[in-house]
Amino acid sequence: MNTFGTLFRISIFGESHGKAVGVTIDGCPAGIDMDVNDFLADLERRKPGAAGTTPRLEEDAPNIISGVFKGKTTGSPITILFENKNVQSADYDAIKGTPRPGHADFVLHKKFNGFNDYRGGGHSSGRLTLAIVAAGVVAKKILSPVEVNATLAEAGGTTDIEAAIAKALVQQDSIGGIVSCSVKGLPLGLGEPFFNSAESLISHMIFSVPAIKGIEFGNGFTATKMYGSEHNDAILDEKGTTKTNNAGGINGGITNGNELFFRVAVKPTSSTPQLQHTWNEASQKVESFKVKGRHDLCIALRVPVVVEAAAAIALADLLLISKVY
Amino acid sequence: MNTFGTLFRISIFGESHGKAVGVTIDGCPAGIDMDVNDFLADLERRKPGAAGTTPRLEEDAPNIISGVFKGKTTGSPITILFENKNVQSADYDAIKGTPRPGHADFVLHKKFNGFNDYRGGGHSSGRLTLAIVAAGVVAKKILSPVEVNATLAEAGGTTDIEAAIAKALVQQDSIGGIVSCSVKGLPLGLGEPFFNSAESLISHMIFSVPAIKGIEFGNGFTATKMYGSEHNDAILDEKGTTKTNNAGGINGGITNGNELFFRVAVKPTSSTPQLQHTWNEASQKVESFKVKGRHDLCIALRVPVVVEAAAAIALADLLLISKVY
Amino acid sequence: MNTFGTLFRISIFGESHGKAVGVTIDGCPAGIDMDVNDFLADLERRKPGAAGTTPRLEEDAPNIISGVFKGKTTGSPITILFENKNVQSADYDAIKGTPRPGHADFVLHKKFNGFNDYRGGGHSSGRLTLAIVAAGVVAKKILSPVEVNATLAEAGGTTDIEAAIAKALVQQDSIGGIVSCSVKGLPLGLGEPFFNSAESLISHMIFSVPAIKGIEFGNGFTATKMYGSEHNDAILDEKGTTKTNNAGGINGGITNGNELFFRVAVKPTSSTPQLQHTWNEASQKVESFKVKGRHDLCIALRVPVVVEAAAAIALADLLLISKVY
Amino acid sequence: MNTFGTLFRISIFGESHGKAVGVTIDGCPAGIDMDVNDFLADLERRKPGAAGTTPRLEEDAPNIISGVFKGKTTGSPITILFENKNVQSADYDAIKGTPRPGHADFVLHKKFNGFNDYRGGGHSSGRLTLAIVAAGVVAKKILSPVEVNATLAEAGGTTDIEAAIAKALVQQDSIGGIVSCSVKGLPLGLGEPFFNSAESLISHMIFSVPAIKGIEFGNGFTATKMYGSEHNDAILDEKGTTKTNNAGGINGGITNGNELFFRVAVKPTSSTPQLQHTWNEASQKVESFKVKGRHDLCIALRVPVVVEAAAAIALADLLLISKVY
Repeated sequence: MNTFGTLFRISIFGESHGKAVGVTIDGCPAGIDMDVNDFLADLERRKPGAAGTTPRLEEDAPNIISGVFKGKTTGSPITILFENKNVQSADYDAIKGTPRPGHADFVLHKKFNGFNDYRGGGHSSGRLTLAIVAAGVVAKKILSPVEVNATLAEAGGTTDIEAAIAKALVQQDSIGGIVSCSVKGLPLGLGEPFFNSAESLISHMIFSVPAIKGIEFGNGFTATKMYGSEHNDAILDEKGTTKTNNAGGINGGITNGNELFFRVAVKPTSSTPQLQHTWNEASQKVESFKVKGRHDLCIALRVPVVVEAAAAIALADLLLISKVY
Repeated sequence: MNTFGTLFRISIFGESHGKAVGVTIDGCPAGIDMDVNDFLADLERRKPGAAGTTPRLEEDAPNIISGVFKGKTTGSPITILFENKNVQSADYDAIKGTPRPGHADFVLHKKFNGFNDYRGGGHSSGRLTLAIVAAGVVAKKILSPVEVNATLAEAGGTTDIEAAIAKALVQQDSIGGIVSCSVKGLPLGLGEPFFNSAESLISHMIFSVPAIKGIEFGNGFTATKMYGSEHNDAILDEKGTTKTNNAGGINGGITNGNELFFRVAVKPTSSTPQLQHTWNEASQKVESFKVKGRHDLCIALRVPVVVEAAAAIALADLLLISKVY
Repeated sequence: MNTFGTLFRISIFGESHGKAVGVTIDGCPAGIDMDVNDFLADLERRKPGAAGTTPRLEEDAPNIISGVFKGKTTGSPITILFENKNVQSADYDAIKGTPRPGHADFVLHKKFNGFNDYRGGGHSSGRLTLAIVAAGVVAKKILSPVEVNATLAEAGGTTDIEAAIAKALVQQDSIGGIVSCSVKGLPLGLGEPFFNSAESLISHMIFSVPAIKGIEFGNGFTATKMYGSEHNDAILDEKGTTKTNNAGGINGGITNGNELFFRVAVKPTSSTPQLQHTWNEASQKVESFKVKGRHDLCIALRVPVVVEAAAAIALADLLLISKVY
Repeated sequence: MNTFGTLFRISIFGESHGKAVGVTIDGCPAGIDMDVNDFLADLERRKPGAAGTTPRLEEDAPNIISGVFKGKTTGSPITILFENKNVQSADYDAIKGTPRPGHADFVLHKKFNGFNDYRGGGHSSGRLTLAIVAAGVVAKKILSPVEVNATLAEAGGTTDIEAAIAKALVQQDSIGGIVSCSVKGLPLGLGEPFFNSAESLISHMIFSVPAIKGIEFGNGFTATKMYGSEHNDAILDEKGTTKTNNAGGINGGITNGNELFFRVAVKPTSSTPQLQHTWNEASQKVESFKVKGRHDLCIALRVPVVVEAAAAIALADLLLISKVY
């Protein structure tokens, strides 16, 4: 169940410590300019390197296997591979018997009867977000000139993000954050009243991104404290421009032509340097341990470009569908 | 695009002021006890009648058209109809030229080039949640003995919900609320790491419910202010029981066998008794108006059973899929 | 698994001797003229009444429940019901223990652990083709001015169909036939090279029609006896008009703008008046019996309009998709 | 639209003269033995080399990128790549202006507005059947101990296939053939009465294989000349064993536990050595030409293993679904 979309469809594959991770993008129209270089900016934004991010440095060079010919999309499926080169699997041998809290180690082991590739989280690794970011680049081309922008609005409960990172480094503990995303220039009419509402499809994709535990559209949870007369966005002209935008650009599941925006909650990185406790299969009791491997202290720093990609993927599909109706 | 699900699939149809609304449930196993009476309790919970709810009273008697024989499901599609009887369409003539803020009137008119049935919101009406509740009853039977429970946790920003309603009645303004939902007894292993994560599928269904603008799993947005060492749920035994449950029963997109819980934000009812402003197509300027028709002052009162149904539908599908793997 | 289609999606439900059979059509564009009367001509063609067809006469009046407003499609799902009125269920009590050869009685009983509605074939009844024909009417409107025409080309092995029926009446034995179908005016470019080839989707729908056991496109099985130089259709102009049409209007899975045509094999009606043998569950041995109930001696007479509908449904979906690309 | 399946889902990608062709197999259960060597026998059967087949010799070594760990499937998507090494693209420059009759050159050029990779048929190339064969190997493992066997039953209209090839070599003209396929050991109950009938899904996959123009189940077109009393297969025991098998193991769309069999029509290879005529874009008139490149005189020789794979893919999906119900 690694596919998303109706017309613009993406499938991801690969494991953190396998040969490669990759994505197949099906349903992309023919004739769109496409080049390896088009992917670099977004891939760069996803890379670690800043304070609070993992020292694992992959080249992350996209290898376009299919679907592009003479610098244009052909209308056939686009497959992009990212080789795994900088792999230190030995770090992960302990995972088998010591499932890391917050991670999926334990549930993966049970769900797949022990056959999952446990190294670095295997297929569940955040490394697969490379594939989502690459698909997002293609989605953004389809959406163009619509602009999708996500930024880290809060980290560790504060909007002073540098201070938050500094504090986390001192505490030697991982932190989370809030990513806000806005989409400008979107036409009115994307989405359906019920199962394929714009919120349904965006949230479906957003919760495909590891570490995300909440989403709110417009003023979201704040709306629950407002009166209807305050919350309703008065319509001002025949284009549907609204005076306020409490709805975040979506009415009844359908984009209304105003800016679409939403915020997502990113939990603290599960791999904290702190001492933790977990069930030890060998000793059959709870034991303390420290996570090995190379990790992000604040994964939220690297999430905005993935959130952009996830939103763009859902919206590109809706935009293509809207060309029929 | 009115279908949801992979194996357990539901399709809804109908309009608020048409002949009927209904649902087709495909992929329900054969041999499950099923009777009209099984639907009544949940349908009753969705009905208006309390202070703060609409005076439109429909009988809402489910008419099982197919898929049930001698009191058992047959394995064929189950279609359930709800006739519309108590219809006052005249109230809605004004909608054509005066799109109600907060409602989908304006976007529906544009999206469907004026061909939508605008009476009472047409296909976008909250009345379609009848169909979702009915499908939820079937989903709960599949999930049994798993228990899905949703309650209104907050209204108008307070946990004293009676007080909130009383205040709204005095203010003559609509309010929203927060619904919390818990699922007990769910097996470990439902959901996939990415696109079909448990959060993805539940949120997809939840945002299919009108008026919902946010969702958070476990401690959600609060998690963004915690350290990893605080947020991680220590694993205590070989079943995966955790000491805390900040993750809301889901790790890496997969249920972990602990209680699953989430909270949803319900915006204030768009139809407030207050004077509002909107674009008037006839006069080509913004004009004030009052919403006609019969409406809920606090739609959130009626949402819990719909949230339960939405969650149950997503989880029933995942449970059926899990029987294969 | 009673749904077909990507954008133009149809779901069918109901049983032969239940309350009704019906269809939900999702993804039909808004603004198409639609009226109960539009369905009558095709429904009439499916009706029994001629020599060699069943004496069961249903009114078969379509009841449009949703998706049509003021004589136009609204863009919301269209549900159409057909009540079952002329039901004689007593005829079918024997089926439980005496599975009719050629019918699905035995496999349905086993597949659904005895919970299937066995009366008149239940959900597997040819009566469900009413729903397919109704969806076909909508599909043809989307395809217009493309014309889909199917006729009975052979019955009982001869092109003199009246003679074939006369002989079957004398022999008191059921017969089959060959239906040929042509589609004129179809644009070039529908279908994909592999899984969604025009042949794949058409055959998928065609084999959804009971009693069909074969399909061939263009000259089909005859092609296997030809040389490539004979079979290849020379391209004569810039529109792609071909000198011959051995390919039946499809190259590499994609329509080529020439007439699309195919032939389907309809087996003899399983319910023959002749004495037959089958396993008797009560006596635990093979026993002879005669089929009760009202049946068609040559079901193939009623199949052409169903074949048209099936083809139109697949092609309408491809046509809508082609508007995006 | 390069994906097939509900639970067992395959997606293919790649072009004949691009970097590679490949397949992603999603929904394969964890814990199945899987090794590169498991693919070699079927891949070998698909290879050219015999009289009447193309001299293009690729190594066709499968490169398993993901989804297999320590010799077992992990439950995550399995991606398999086949590099293209022996490419002679210069042969194909002429295709741009001289669309080959019988091939998809013309329709691809029009459908994709000239952006398709035309070299060797691009994504439409028969080389993509490598991906289908590889997926078929995985499907067969899921089906085991069910056996799927396809053979070339006729070539050029005769069952003496060696003679047919010899004659084609003398005539220097391409020929077609008939492939028959049988599936033994399949459980009763796979498939649904309508849209997901066993015939629907198998034919959907079979027509995904290039050059196939017809399919018949059981005695197919011959059934149209029989009486019902001759065609019906008498049921002989409580397992559903039938005296004859005219239905080819499928009743009412559902497998009945007897041998499933079908025959497919393979048209003559479009690339014949004979002089042909086609529209010439440069001269704007019909001109004669000879096809360049390396081709099979009788592609049908290589089709049986692809037919097996196609059938196995459809049946593996149905088998997995049947575990739920």
